[in-house]
Amino acid sequence: MQLLDGNLTAKTIKSEIAAMVLDLLAKNGKRPHLAAVLVGENGASMTYVGAKVRACEEVGFASTLIQKSADCTESDLLKIVYGLNDDESIDGYIIQLPLPSHINEKKILEAVDPRKDVDGFHPENIGRMALNLPCFLPATPAGIMTLLERYHIETTGKHCVVLGRSHIVGMPMTLLMQRNAQPGNCTVTVLHSKSKDISNHCRQADIIIAAIGQPGFVKADMVKEGAVVIDVGITRVPDFNKKSGFRLSGDVAFEEVAPKCAFITPVPGGVGPMTIVSLLSNTFLAAENKLMSKS
Amino acid sequence: MQLLDGNLTAKTIKSEIAAMVLDLLAKNGKRPHLAAVLVGENGASMTYVGAKVRACEEVGFASTLIQKSADCTESDLLKIVYGLNDDESIDGYIIQLPLPSHINEKKILEAVDPRKDVDGFHPENIGRMALNLPCFLPATPAGIMTLLERYHIETTGKHCVVLGRSHIVGMPMTLLMQRNAQPGNCTVTVLHSKSKDISNHCRQADIIIAAIGQPGFVKADMVKEGAVVIDVGITRVPDFNKKSGFRLSGDVAFEEVAPKCAFITPVPGGVGPMTIVSLLSNTFLAAENKLMSKS
Repeated sequence: MQLLDGNLTAKTIKSEIAAMVLDLLAKNGKRPHLAAVLVGENGASMTYVGAKVRACEEVGFASTLIQKSADCTESDLLKIVYGLNDDESIDGYIIQLPLPSHINEKKILEAVDPRKDVDGFHPENIGRMALNLPCFLPATPAGIMTLLERYHIETTGKHCVVLGRSHIVGMPMTLLMQRNAQPGNCTVTVLHSKSKDISNHCRQADIIIAAIGQPGFVKADMVKEGAVVIDVGITRVPDFNKKSGFRLSGDVAFEEVAPKCAFITPVPGGVGPMTIVSLLSNTFLAAENKLMSKS
Repeated sequence: MQLLDGNLTAKTIKSEIAAMVLDLLAKNGKRPHLAAVLVGENGASMTYVGAKVRACEEVGFASTLIQKSADCTESDLLKIVYGLNDDESIDGYIIQLPLPSHINEKKILEAVDPRKDVDGFHPENIGRMALNLPCFLPATPAGIMTLLERYHIETTGKHCVVLGRSHIVGMPMTLLMQRNAQPGNCTVTVLHSKSKDISNHCRQADIIIAAIGQPGFVKADMVKEGAVVIDVGITRVPDFNKKSGFRLSGDVAFEEVAPKCAFITPVPGGVGPMTIVSLLSNTFLAAENKLMSKS
């Protein structure tokens, strides 16, 4: 069994990006610039945005954090979005989710210029991904594809089972793993809350990607000997032995599943660190302006 | 075994649309208007476009056929596309594929205004489909969904195997059958040219959707007793007993498979007629202007 070390891989890629930033600076004086919009005081959101801004600094990006209080109206937020679309100094930006309930999330995300949509959430980017056109891939799926690539995991002709059909992980993973690309070319089965015989499907899989947010859902008897297991889940589980009062748990019962695997991601330290790295890669691509022409 | 009669269903829906057109005319004097662009003299393309224009007339739509010779340049075709985007009298339009090889098909399709893209090929429509947002569904997948719906075929929790991952049938079917909608909510497995154990996967399926263009590929021993089989294939096979010298063959060996099925589509007369009906439905939606706001 080999661990897919997200921390290590993320570190490697960050130093690659840092070197590319120096190159870009030397060539045309351009420093990639990511903006993040945070509405309200959700603790987890503040932590995530903070980590993203710090990651930008680590690799030499410029970053701008726009914070609005929770009473920010939808039309005020739309104005910010339009401003960011027009601001030529901003290469890409993200709207940290979730937004307060009085704001229509879909409306906001659709207003983002697809060419600055480094989160890859805009319908046009999702569609371009499905059609195998250049696009910004959503960060977590892109991070998983990079892990598979960096560890030279053969995917062609393998049977990949995706647990979950969320718009930000499961659905994109289904598209990415089946498409004619490397990594890709898998037979893909997608399972979700309405699926039956989940154990039976999982047992047939060469690759399992679990993204349902149910701690320890994937048990040893659901995994084939020699499988590759990617654990996207990250749930806080009460744990009174920890100072914080909780520990982070993935969707996979790691202790019992790991011994059967060829490769497995730990939680934390697997998929998580790769997500931020994908955001940085997307922002660098946006700064290079190579993906989609800005008309 | 019951036949899923595409001819009959298409006829029913056409008369429904014809009634809706009269309604729309009475309400605001508007007659839906579809334009079709045909480049070159490809025989099959001319037949298809002819059938689409005739179908428009049957339901009371206005139609415009724009024919260009095969030496039409890419920039001339782009000008036609921009003109159709701007022409307020046109509700929706299609570019008949394939285009001559000197024209970049992707570039042309991306230039189509997504709000007039009644073929549902634009990345934004594909992305909106993946995200379960209002959109124009690609015509063949939409036709299959309508057949399942009209025959009240239960799909929730069923295992659907999609054979083929083409951008116009297989990939969209994978998305539509797994999404949280009715029909939908299937466990979906997508198989393609790089897949292994195809027979084994097919034998597990409650629903098989075959879209690979290989005549008679799906044999009786690949189909579970009581399965629903949708045959999207339509290939000309030499047949000297026919005056034309050929017959149309689906991807399914109908004679041996049909007796095992709960439902099966014939070829021809199954999925085919539904495709044109979907185009009409999309054009009607475009005329109603309800799907996506025209900014």
